[in-house]
Amino acid sequence: MKPVVSIIMGSTSDLGVMEEAAKLLNELEIPFEINALSAHRTPEKVAAFASGAYDRGIRVIIAGAGGAAHLPGVIASMTALPVIGVPINSSNSIDGWDSLLSILQMPPGIPVATVGVDAARNAAILALQMLGTGDEAIYSKLIAFKEGLRKKIIQANEELSGKARYPFRVG
Amino acid sequence: MKPVVSIIMGSTSDLGVMEEAAKLLNELEIPFEINALSAHRTPEKVAAFASGAYDRGIRVIIAGAGGAAHLPGVIASMTALPVIGVPINSSNSIDGWDSLLSILQMPPGIPVATVGVDAARNAAILALQMLGTGDEAIYSKLIAFKEGLRKKIIQANEELSGKARYPFRVG
Amino acid sequence: MKPVVSIIMGSTSDLGVMEEAAKLLNELEIPFEINALSAHRTPEKVAAFASGAYDRGIRVIIAGAGGAAHLPGVIASMTALPVIGVPINSSNSIDGWDSLLSILQMPPGIPVATVGVDAARNAAILALQMLGTGDEAIYSKLIAFKEGLRKKIIQANEELSGKARYPFRVG
Amino acid sequence: MKPVVSIIMGSTSDLGVMEEAAKLLNELEIPFEINALSAHRTPEKVAAFASGAYDRGIRVIIAGAGGAAHLPGVIASMTALPVIGVPINSSNSIDGWDSLLSILQMPPGIPVATVGVDAARNAAILALQMLGTGDEAIYSKLIAFKEGLRKKIIQANEELSGKARYPFRVG
Amino acid sequence: MKPVVSIIMGSTSDLGVMEEAAKLLNELEIPFEINALSAHRTPEKVAAFASGAYDRGIRVIIAGAGGAAHLPGVIASMTALPVIGVPINSSNSIDGWDSLLSILQMPPGIPVATVGVDAARNAAILALQMLGTGDEAIYSKLIAFKEGLRKKIIQANEELSGKARYPFRVG
Amino acid sequence: MKPVVSIIMGSTSDLGVMEEAAKLLNELEIPFEINALSAHRTPEKVAAFASGAYDRGIRVIIAGAGGAAHLPGVIASMTALPVIGVPINSSNSIDGWDSLLSILQMPPGIPVATVGVDAARNAAILALQMLGTGDEAIYSKLIAFKEGLRKKIIQANEELSGKARYPFRVG
Amino acid sequence: MKPVVSIIMGSTSDLGVMEEAAKLLNELEIPFEINALSAHRTPEKVAAFASGAYDRGIRVIIAGAGGAAHLPGVIASMTALPVIGVPINSSNSIDGWDSLLSILQMPPGIPVATVGVDAARNAAILALQMLGTGDEAIYSKLIAFKEGLRKKIIQANEELSGKARYPFRVG
Amino acid sequence: MKPVVSIIMGSTSDLGVMEEAAKLLNELEIPFEINALSAHRTPEKVAAFASGAYDRGIRVIIAGAGGAAHLPGVIASMTALPVIGVPINSSNSIDGWDSLLSILQMPPGIPVATVGVDAARNAAILALQMLGTGDEAIYSKLIAFKEGLRKKIIQANEELSGKARYPFRVG
Repeated sequence: MKPVVSIIMGSTSDLGVMEEAAKLLNELEIPFEINALSAHRTPEKVAAFASGAYDRGIRVIIAGAGGAAHLPGVIASMTALPVIGVPINSSNSIDGWDSLLSILQMPPGIPVATVGVDAARNAAILALQMLGTGDEAIYSKLIAFKEGLRKKIIQANEELSGKARYPFRVG
Repeated sequence: MKPVVSIIMGSTSDLGVMEEAAKLLNELEIPFEINALSAHRTPEKVAAFASGAYDRGIRVIIAGAGGAAHLPGVIASMTALPVIGVPINSSNSIDGWDSLLSILQMPPGIPVATVGVDAARNAAILALQMLGTGDEAIYSKLIAFKEGLRKKIIQANEELSGKARYPFRVG
Repeated sequence: MKPVVSIIMGSTSDLGVMEEAAKLLNELEIPFEINALSAHRTPEKVAAFASGAYDRGIRVIIAGAGGAAHLPGVIASMTALPVIGVPINSSNSIDGWDSLLSILQMPPGIPVATVGVDAARNAAILALQMLGTGDEAIYSKLIAFKEGLRKKIIQANEELSGKARYPFRVG
Repeated sequence: MKPVVSIIMGSTSDLGVMEEAAKLLNELEIPFEINALSAHRTPEKVAAFASGAYDRGIRVIIAGAGGAAHLPGVIASMTALPVIGVPINSSNSIDGWDSLLSILQMPPGIPVATVGVDAARNAAILALQMLGTGDEAIYSKLIAFKEGLRKKIIQANEELSGKARYPFRVG
Repeated sequence: MKPVVSIIMGSTSDLGVMEEAAKLLNELEIPFEINALSAHRTPEKVAAFASGAYDRGIRVIIAGAGGAAHLPGVIASMTALPVIGVPINSSNSIDGWDSLLSILQMPPGIPVATVGVDAARNAAILALQMLGTGDEAIYSKLIAFKEGLRKKIIQANEELSGKARYPFRVG
Repeated sequence: MKPVVSIIMGSTSDLGVMEEAAKLLNELEIPFEINALSAHRTPEKVAAFASGAYDRGIRVIIAGAGGAAHLPGVIASMTALPVIGVPINSSNSIDGWDSLLSILQMPPGIPVATVGVDAARNAAILALQMLGTGDEAIYSKLIAFKEGLRKKIIQANEELSGKARYPFRVG
Repeated sequence: MKPVVSIIMGSTSDLGVMEEAAKLLNELEIPFEINALSAHRTPEKVAAFASGAYDRGIRVIIAGAGGAAHLPGVIASMTALPVIGVPINSSNSIDGWDSLLSILQMPPGIPVATVGVDAARNAAILALQMLGTGDEAIYSKLIAFKEGLRKKIIQANEELSGKARYPFRVG
Repeated sequence: MKPVVSIIMGSTSDLGVMEEAAKLLNELEIPFEINALSAHRTPEKVAAFASGAYDRGIRVIIAGAGGAAHLPGVIASMTALPVIGVPINSSNSIDGWDSLLSILQMPPGIPVATVGVDAARNAAILALQMLGTGDEAIYSKLIAFKEGLRKKIIQANEELSGKARYPFRVG
């Protein structure tokens, strides 16, 4: 079994956020790898990682970083694989604004597929959607996953009926 | 020939921005369609579009919108296909901030792959990268495209040598 | 007794904020309903809700949501009833900025009556003001409510006289 | 014929924006009045206006202002009628941010129904929606108006089919 | 002894911040009054307060408010006395941005002398500086106050010498 | 005749904005001086100016600057006179945000009375209000000035009656 | 041993942040001094400090301040030495935005080398890089320091391998 | 003559801004080179440039970039030389905010000396200040340059005396 999705993060302190992506991939049984790689402190490792990813079987890269978050963009510049960027509201970030803008506003030719601040779980879903463009089995998993999500929401909403009861509530 | 990528925009006034995506797809010979669909003014058309897209052969959706830009997220909620969101700095937008946040900050379970403000061309490249995860021919096109980009940049930079010459410039 | 005001929220986790609207409506004896409906996870339920609301007797809709808060706008696109939007500073929001802009900056033709961040109680007062345009009994309730508010404020201010006393305080 | 909707603006220089509300009300044949009243320069006129509005037959007030935009909130504090606030990106505004926040973030008890920056036309639609809660004829006008809007959009989108034609465009 | 400076606040919940102004005035023996007055909930009391202030002997008004903070501007519109505005980062404020802009960005003709967010103590110093333009005794108090401040700073800085000692620290 | 108000600016390029203060003072016949002094390029001149101002008869200082706008705060640190700060949206400013925050957010003990971005005319009115605390003649001028302002506004508003006439306009 | 780097801060309450710079300089054995100097409360001491720094042997100044942070810019205006500015998210700062802009946006001719919010340790590294332009021994220390940093990162990343293990994790 | 300062920019379209740095270095007779290098499109050229710079005699690097501006930080991660970052308000930037934050908010261990938006001339002055820490001749040039600047300012300010003359202007 070879990993298809690679999760990387700028610092091991980002694990708390990025592990949500790992959990979702594991739950949907997509082989993945997870590593920490600093765009700024180990640039040659980042280059080796990015240029070799396709040949190792990786098809989507999820990269999370905070502050002046260069990791997703730097990797995107070194591979033709799609890179999903997760802006992290890390301890040295200004409420996530710096992370968000450093990942989103990439120059022409080098897109990063950016998701919301700290939204690593959504990044994993997006990775599956990308893989699903060429893999019907994964697409079917997504359909089932979405249906499960829907049911949970409907159930949670039904439980709301029992809460917040007032004389003038009639619905 | 059936379209594989579907470009949609919230208003026909967004055509100037979104046509950049069409040009890139055309240049790389990826069959596409391009339409305007308002999440707010023709919601049932949006629902029909989104739920039927996969069966029509669409594999990636690129959706651009400005202001309270709901179109990309609304479509993402109705399909398991990946949706790329292009925040547009339209005439009723506050410098693109509203467009950007309305697209990026999606709730758990419904990601939108957001690119930079007005970055429709990057959205098209990202669409190809997504398709390339399951299609080697498209992946090869991307490799060639990236190499072409690199050469143009190198050439532009070389032309810089002839400009801005000063006595103390030695490089 | 049929509900006249419908309170909806994007997620059951928004109940803490949105219940303030329910309390005010209950206090002023306006029949209401309260439900959770996700614009993104149960879009067809949202459509059924919005298109049937008028015929069920609903006259005003109060919708709260956080992050890329599409619920108020999506509902407004499917009904001619007035929709009051409550931006929620939810756990996945950037200090409420995303919620606020996603609700306020609606395109031409589809307004949402936006109130302040987390201001569900104000949303309920606004709902009564809307109903009061065609219902003198409700208008009278509002006049009484406003007078009560005024008295509470005056009393609170008078209690201030006993606090923060200093030798040079003469007023 | 007595006016039902009152449009006011903080300065006559706001007429260019606020006239859009007048045009829509005129088009839908709702009697209205339009005046300039400065919260700061003629406060006693504002007080007289607000406290007498209901008895003169006014049922909804639309108030536009820019910068430290106090007019909508000040009026809302002096009447039980619903007040719709239009933040104006006037020449002394910082891209509309000050106008928007000064109108939206009202304290408990005094809501202002805020619409998007410079969105006076949307304010007029919202005024009709408010009136429609108690007036079926107006509600019917809105239904027709929305249908007209829908048709214009569909037509505009169809015209898009003839534009932006490329060899690889197939939709 | 009649009050010369009047401290007012939009809500009694602002007392924690505004009391800092009272303490400074008390310390420098300037007769003052302190009250809560809501621009929105008791507008006629605000009008009575503002229009009568000069004749009661008030020469400077310090007004604090949060969120859509209209109190300082509304008072400034009803008196020729200088009004110092204190933006308060109250519980319904977005980090103080709304308070700040609602007070600072006043229209032509009606300035409010704005100080920093929650800076009530600075507002009191500014009040003394204003009074000092026509009162040499107050000006002398300020000179002495500034000198005291300077000494405290110098002493605090000297105490720093004993802290944070390292082998390579030589200053 | 000795100047009572001193207008200074950080750069001669700020004259276009700051001259509005001069015009107002001239119109109300308050003796003033106007100079350019850079906090950063001629610091010793700033020190000489600030420390000697009171003895030369200056009672209020109006200081305008853009970008990292230190001039108002630096002068306020060197005199007990009140300093009014005018944030200028100069060519090297980010929409005035940097100017505004650099002037407003002064530390404890050193307030600057900040007015709106580019609001030099309001700064001059505020200077008169400060002087009016100890000078009844100036206070009377202000009362007359405010009355004139009021009349102009009322007249402008009346002229509005003739504009924007529609069949359904009845006010 | 004379200090080569001078660390100054606007207030002794900034010591917690600025001590990180001291620790790094001590660790790399660069003689330094550390003092508190208020641009606003002891301006003449700041002037004496800045104008005498070069002759005392200082070659780089690191200055930290919060809110309307003028200290770094004021010092830069009084010396030809490079000044590194550290924006501090102090208690009177709006999330560091005011500190950042007050330091960064200096006028033409007077740069301040700004580092990230609260990034005093990075300021010390930058000071060494500046000294290293003319001192090979310091440059060598930096090379060794960077290598140490790299090793720590690689080790931390390797430890990640043992964490977050899931059945479908294969990397 | 070998270059001591290296100016690089992310795109040749940044030349208009970055040439200001070249002009200043030329004026002060500091040998320099100027090139365009894209962090994202020619990453291996950036790596070769950064790792070889010291040995080629470069002592300071000035790097300008816009949008998600990674170039300065990427270079700083590959050399121990000081890197000065110039945030550029390029056509794909959101008023410079993205450029500014992507450069300034670097992680621990990899500082970038950031100057104001588009402030390339200030970057060049800062480069000279860095070189001046180990080179007395350059330090002397800076002293002379600063004196020249001072004189120009004083002259410009004197010319102000002849402008904006009013009857009540007495200074």
